[in-house]
Amino acid sequence: MLTKTPHLFDDATAVTAGDSRWQGRTSPDYWAFVAPFGGCTAATILRALMQHPQRAGDPLALTVNYCAPVAEGAFDLDVRLVKANRSSQHWSVEMTQGGGEVATLATSVFAERRPSWSHQPADFPGAVPFEQLRSYPKLAMTWANQYDFRFAEGEPKFSGSAPKEPSSAYSKMWIADRVPRKLDALSLMSMSDAFFGRVFHARHELVPFGTVSLTTYFHADAADLDTEDTTRVLATADAKTFHKSYGDQHGELWSPSGRLLATTTQIAYFKA
Amino acid sequence: MLTKTPHLFDDATAVTAGDSRWQGRTSPDYWAFVAPFGGCTAATILRALMQHPQRAGDPLALTVNYCAPVAEGAFDLDVRLVKANRSSQHWSVEMTQGGGEVATLATSVFAERRPSWSHQPADFPGAVPFEQLRSYPKLAMTWANQYDFRFAEGEPKFSGSAPKEPSSAYSKMWIADRVPRKLDALSLMSMSDAFFGRVFHARHELVPFGTVSLTTYFHADAADLDTEDTTRVLATADAKTFHKSYGDQHGELWSPSGRLLATTTQIAYFKA
Repeated sequence: MLTKTPHLFDDATAVTAGDSRWQGRTSPDYWAFVAPFGGCTAATILRALMQHPQRAGDPLALTVNYCAPVAEGAFDLDVRLVKANRSSQHWSVEMTQGGGEVATLATSVFAERRPSWSHQPADFPGAVPFEQLRSYPKLAMTWANQYDFRFAEGEPKFSGSAPKEPSSAYSKMWIADRVPRKLDALSLMSMSDAFFGRVFHARHELVPFGTVSLTTYFHADAADLDTEDTTRVLATADAKTFHKSYGDQHGELWSPSGRLLATTTQIAYFKA
Repeated sequence: MLTKTPHLFDDATAVTAGDSRWQGRTSPDYWAFVAPFGGCTAATILRALMQHPQRAGDPLALTVNYCAPVAEGAFDLDVRLVKANRSSQHWSVEMTQGGGEVATLATSVFAERRPSWSHQPADFPGAVPFEQLRSYPKLAMTWANQYDFRFAEGEPKFSGSAPKEPSSAYSKMWIADRVPRKLDALSLMSMSDAFFGRVFHARHELVPFGTVSLTTYFHADAADLDTEDTTRVLATADAKTFHKSYGDQHGELWSPSGRLLATTTQIAYFKA
């Protein structure tokens, strides 16, 4: 039997099971400005839930509140099954470091999804194929280099100063792990936070920015993802408003075959 | 000094302060199929946070996970300030009844919002004026009769059976308290869950339905709402997918003057 080399993403989101308290460690491979990439933190929390012995069903919703920057090093996850119903579960997870204050607070819903009437009113955005687009150049943040971003629309331009009229905050792009990895709920969770700050797109400049609260809904269960059998998503993101230091983002993650896999929304702080 | 008659909404969302445990009681005036209207529950949780002596700033985000139906009668709210930063706060609230299991689990972010670059890319949907539209007829659920819904587009039709081709899940409507009440964060929170189930719109029939998780972002603070000085919102809602017994909803709540006050998203169970 061959031991597969684990993917960096699986390393970065690894957790060690405890009774109710689980352990993990930040990864230098998924680092953002001053803390771990929020998508990696969210995926780590989701992994703890998926590996939990009491887990039943597939992830349906995850909300992550980023209370304070996570510091480099070890962290604890306090995982609690708040309420279990016949076919759904409600979880709460708190991330702390060294017994200190809560750095990340999350709630999640898992469900055993049953066959039903199916209908997808949202239009598949479509795009130039992945292979025909160029990869977005490497960035200083290590997390961004773990992904192969290929913009079909709205590639960010950083002129270093805000234009007179704000640019569109919309973007459409392929997102794949730089080292291909079969798409699962964990990578969907991480990719749902992998859009660049909408304020960067609108203003053509990097400004202080941080996600405050992120919510992702999963519209495909493990069986659906197995059927899709893909390593990438076609993703769109946009913003509706920037006001008094906070702005929103909403996004969609699609399989190449045109199935809506996940929707996501976040509210983020910015200084501009 | 005159004592103002309290609005039914203020009665329904009233809470009594405790140390960390607060008390409230469900209201027959805001009742849904088998439990209180989720928007009323969400507003009650928000009220406890807003009245909390440690509260600083305005609500920015509230996520409510509906774990189990709330029964008629008294409930307790376990309110916890999870983390306070210089200008933001992270809260967690658990609703229980009679010392039992958690019925509702919520997290919220409050922030003291600072002047910044402002930009609203989202287009104000516009609509026929409130006064020129007819009120949606009264319904069996008491909560719905507390609101004056006036549809500009996508008024639900209940033929009692699903059409061959699903109808649009989109609707645009005015929402006002039936007895006018100045719009505040509490009513915005409640109204953000006041859309009818998207599945009813798509299928022209009432099917078993329940919100599982709801997230609302506030894009206006108390000062902004004071400036708007309105008793109604123009609201839009739509769905992107229905699959394996769960469907999504996303919505916008606008002031009549064209300011985006709140955005909301939810994932809901349905049986069809």
